[in-house]
Amino acid sequence: MRDFLPAEKARRERILSVIKNSYRAHGFDEIETPVMEDSDRLNAGLGGDNEKLAFGVMKRGLTREDLHAAEQPLDLADLGLRFDLTVPLARFYASHRAELPNVFRSIQVAPVWRAERPQKGRYRQFVQCDIDIIGEAGIQAEAELLVASLATVDALGLADATIRVNDRRLLIGMLTGFGFAAAEHDAVLITIDKLDKLGPEGVVAELAERSANADAVAAFRDFLGRPQTLELLPFGERAIRRSLPEGADDGVVAGLVALGEAVAAARGEEAAPLVFDPFLVRGMGYYTGPIFELAHPSVGYSLGGGGRYDGMIGRFLGADVPATGFSLGFERLVELLEPPAAAGGAAVALVHDTDAPLGALLALQSALVARGDRARLVKRAKNTKLQLENLAEQGFTSFAFLGADTPASVDALDLRPLD
Amino acid sequence: MRDFLPAEKARRERILSVIKNSYRAHGFDEIETPVMEDSDRLNAGLGGDNEKLAFGVMKRGLTREDLHAAEQPLDLADLGLRFDLTVPLARFYASHRAELPNVFRSIQVAPVWRAERPQKGRYRQFVQCDIDIIGEAGIQAEAELLVASLATVDALGLADATIRVNDRRLLIGMLTGFGFAAAEHDAVLITIDKLDKLGPEGVVAELAERSANADAVAAFRDFLGRPQTLELLPFGERAIRRSLPEGADDGVVAGLVALGEAVAAARGEEAAPLVFDPFLVRGMGYYTGPIFELAHPSVGYSLGGGGRYDGMIGRFLGADVPATGFSLGFERLVELLEPPAAAGGAAVALVHDTDAPLGALLALQSALVARGDRARLVKRAKNTKLQLENLAEQGFTSFAFLGADTPASVDALDLRPLD
Repeated sequence: MRDFLPAEKARRERILSVIKNSYRAHGFDEIETPVMEDSDRLNAGLGGDNEKLAFGVMKRGLTREDLHAAEQPLDLADLGLRFDLTVPLARFYASHRAELPNVFRSIQVAPVWRAERPQKGRYRQFVQCDIDIIGEAGIQAEAELLVASLATVDALGLADATIRVNDRRLLIGMLTGFGFAAAEHDAVLITIDKLDKLGPEGVVAELAERSANADAVAAFRDFLGRPQTLELLPFGERAIRRSLPEGADDGVVAGLVALGEAVAAARGEEAAPLVFDPFLVRGMGYYTGPIFELAHPSVGYSLGGGGRYDGMIGRFLGADVPATGFSLGFERLVELLEPPAAAGGAAVALVHDTDAPLGALLALQSALVARGDRARLVKRAKNTKLQLENLAEQGFTSFAFLGADTPASVDALDLRPLD
Repeated sequence: MRDFLPAEKARRERILSVIKNSYRAHGFDEIETPVMEDSDRLNAGLGGDNEKLAFGVMKRGLTREDLHAAEQPLDLADLGLRFDLTVPLARFYASHRAELPNVFRSIQVAPVWRAERPQKGRYRQFVQCDIDIIGEAGIQAEAELLVASLATVDALGLADATIRVNDRRLLIGMLTGFGFAAAEHDAVLITIDKLDKLGPEGVVAELAERSANADAVAAFRDFLGRPQTLELLPFGERAIRRSLPEGADDGVVAGLVALGEAVAAARGEEAAPLVFDPFLVRGMGYYTGPIFELAHPSVGYSLGGGGRYDGMIGRFLGADVPATGFSLGFERLVELLEPPAAAGGAAVALVHDTDAPLGALLALQSALVARGDRARLVKRAKNTKLQLENLAEQGFTSFAFLGADTPASVDALDLRPLD
C-alpha cells in the first residue's frame, strides 16, 4: 500500500479524470459501492483465485470465547474488502435493478484490495477502472465497450495500443474438438494461457504432462504446428476461420466479425486495432462469450481486458441477466503514460517577509483566487533562489515578493514569472 | 454503508469537485493515504472514542491454533480501517517530511469507516474533507484555514454560514480560574460541550452531580448567570473579553483578535461571519489552541470544524511539529445543499430501432463525443413517450430516432430537444 504525495496524486487524478470523462461521454454512468461486502458474497466462488486474497474484516464485539470457539478465520469475519469491482457490481445490480435503466452502462473507478505478497508492481491497494453493460445480450454491448475504451486510450495519449479478441465458446469448441473432456477444460485453459511465456512446445509439454488424454494433446500439437495457426491476419472472417480448427461455431464467428465491422465503422479501419487471438484465455472462470485484452508494444503484460459474463448476475438476482465489461489496468497505465499537462491557470506564490501584514496577504490571495488563479502564501526563506526553484518545481508559474508595504490590490502586485 | 446510484454519485462528485478546486486554489495540495493503517497506530490513543469504532482487518494466514491462543480480538488484527484522516496524516507527515514543503498544506478528501450502530444520519462509511497546515505555529495558519473554508462554503452556494471560534487554552484557563483541578478538566469539558442541549441550568446540574468541587461549580454557575455571558457581540477584543472571566490570557486573546482581523481583511467585514463562543469545546482531546465549528441557521448540528493539535505529529515523528486543520462535514453538506447544476454540454440519446446498423450508430456516437457531447445508444421502447421522459430525467438534453436508414453524419441527424 502506498502514500501518494502531491505531484503523484495530481497526476493520478488527472488520468482518472480523463478516463471518467471519456466513458461518461460515451453514455456510461458512474456508480459507487461500499468498499466492504458481506463475507458470504465475497467468498461465493465468483472471484476465482482472488477470493483467497480478500482481506477479512473482524466481526464486532467478539469475545475471547468467540475466538476460542472459531474453527477457521472466516468464522470471525462478517465483512471483507472487495478484491474486484465485478462482484460488487453484480450485488449492486441485484439490489437496485428496478431503479436502473433496462440496459445499464456503469462506470466504477475505485480501489480494490488483495493480500498480495510484497513484490515489484504488485500492490495491496490499487485502483480499477471498470465499465460494464448489463442487460444487453447482443454484440452491440461489446462494440460499445471497445469503441469507448479505444477512445479513452486515445484520450490518454497512448498510441499503438491493440485489443486482442477471442470468444470463450470458440476456445471450448476447440478443446472439445481435440477430444478434451469437459472436466479437463479449465486445467487445459490454464496451460494455454501460458502460450506467450512457454511458447508452443512448452505448452504442449505441459499438457502432455498434466493431461491423461494423449490423443487430444497430439491433436492440439498438430494444430499448433500448422504454419498459419500463429500467423495473424487483419481482423475479419478470413483471419478468424484460418486461425481456428474446422468446425468453429458459425454464429460465434459471425458475432466477432460483426464486432470488428462495427468498431471499424465507428472509428475508421485504421483506428480499429483489433486482433483475433485464438489462444486468448483471460483468467476468470466466469466468462461466457467474447473476451478482450488491451496490449501495447512497449510492455509484455496486458493493460486491461474483460469479457462477457452472462451467468454471474443471476447468482445474486436469481434470474439470468446478460453482462459484459472492460477494465483498464489503471496502475499499469499510470506507470506507462507521460503525465498529461496540468490544467491551465496561473499558480502564484506570494513570497512574504514575516512583517508583511497577514490581512493584506490574505486579501491578495482571495483576489487572485477570485480571478481564477491558484495562490499560496509562502514565508520567504534565507536561500531565496533555491526557494523559487522549489516553487517552480511544485508547479507555481509566478511569484511576488511582499513585505511591510504589501499592496492592497492585485493590480499593484509586482508578479514575476517562475521557471 | 450505502450504494450510490448514478444521479446521487454525480451530485456527490460535483460537490467534491467544488471543494477540492477551491482548496487547491487557496494553495493546498491533495494527498492520499491507504485506507488501512497498522492497528498499533490506529489504537495509539489519538483517536479518542473513535478508536473503539475502528474496523479491524484480520492478520493473514491465521491458523485455528492462532485463534485459540488469542486473548482478545485485537491480537488477531494487524491492520484496521482508518476512522479519521488526522491520524493517517500525522503518520504520512512523519514518513515523508523530507519530501514536503516546510509548511505543508494538505487536502484529504476520502472515506473513513466507523462501526456505528445503524441509525439515521450515521453511516459506517462516509467521506471526510480535511485541510491541514503543518509546520506553521502562528495564527496565520488558522487564518488561511478559515479564509479557504469560507470561500469553499461560498462556492458551494451555502449562504449564512457562521464559524464559532474559541481556544482550548481559554477554556482550560477558565476552568483553572474557577478552581477545577486539572484531572477534572476533561470531564468538565464533556459536560460544558452539552450547553446547547442541556442549557445553562442543565450543565450546572450535571457538573454539581459529577464534580466533587462544589466551589468551582458555584463559580461556574455564577459566571453563566451573568447577563452578558451568553450574549454574543461582533467578533473582536471587546466581545472576547466580555464573554470570559477575568484573567484570560492576553496572548491568546490577541491571537484570536488578529485571526478575526485577518479574515475580515481578506473577505471584508460583512463576509467574515466569525463568532466568539467561550463554551465551544470540540470533542477531541488532542486540541491545543484555537478551535472552530461551522454552523448554519437551518440545522442544529455543526457542518464542520477543527482546530490546532500541536502535540500529535510529535507522537509519530519524535519531534514536535505545529499543526492545525479544518474538516468539512461532507455528508451533512450533501444533505443540505441544493444540487449544483450539472456541467454544461449536450447529452444526446440516439434512440434506435433494432434494424439500425450498429456501425453507423457507433459512428454517430463517436462523432458526437468528438464534438464535446455526451451520447448514448438507447434501444427504442414500446412506450416511447415514457422512454423519452425517463431520458430527460436522467439528464439527456436531446434525442434522435434512428432506423434502418441511420444517417452517416451528425449534420444529417434530426436532433430534437428533450425536456
